[in-house]
Amino acid sequence: MTDWLDRVRWDRDGLVPVIAQEAATGDVLMFAWMNREALSRTAALRQAVYFSRSRQKLWHKGEESGHFQDVHEIRIDCDQDVVLLKITQRGHEPGIACHTGRHSCFYERLEGDHWVAVDPVLKDPETIYR
Amino acid sequence: MTDWLDRVRWDRDGLVPVIAQEAATGDVLMFAWMNREALSRTAALRQAVYFSRSRQKLWHKGEESGHFQDVHEIRIDCDQDVVLLKITQRGHEPGIACHTGRHSCFYERLEGDHWVAVDPVLKDPETIYR
Repeated sequence: MTDWLDRVRWDRDGLVPVIAQEAATGDVLMFAWMNREALSRTAALRQAVYFSRSRQKLWHKGEESGHFQDVHEIRIDCDQDVVLLKITQRGHEPGIACHTGRHSCFYERLEGDHWVAVDPVLKDPETIYR
Repeated sequence: MTDWLDRVRWDRDGLVPVIAQEAATGDVLMFAWMNREALSRTAALRQAVYFSRSRQKLWHKGEESGHFQDVHEIRIDCDQDVVLLKITQRGHEPGIACHTGRHSCFYERLEGDHWVAVDPVLKDPETIYR
């Protein structure tokens, strides 16, 4: 393991929050977590590898859906406790990052005192996960 | 307190991670946390109010620096456990969100096996916090 991984301030669970931003559009597509091994693999592979907190294991994004994320840049914030990826979302045009078949996971907007889904489903999730 | 706040899946500390994205440019400026009261106040005030984990209190961004964040949109992700704000960063042109005097907190990029500061300091932090 190399020095740059030691600079990350891992939380009490050994994780760091990660924001995935589409390089071409600037759209924030999703948010997930990485442990040390996930970040190391992401940097080596140049594709996003997260740590699934629910499954407690590494999760190479796209391994089931084909919707891989090519990583162009890895950034870290001023406290070294949040990572920002600049990515290209593969597998569909426009890119689908969300398991609901939407472009971005952030498809609900607060309107008044209700959350409203404002972005369209681009592909039936039933056909994404085979 | 209203229903929409109940929809948020607060973590074990009663917090939710928040991404602040500049509305006009798409730039991800910072990442912070909110508790229920912070998110409620943000929605009411239309300015970002975070919860400082280090100080364990509400933090109306800009209260010391003048660098307030006007909030145009509040979004939530598909798991209802991450919030995305679309904001305008006030107080300087271009906006300064980072306490180091930079536009964005994500100014360090991984190059090979080193983190390198790639974005300029726009204003001396000594002159921001009086």
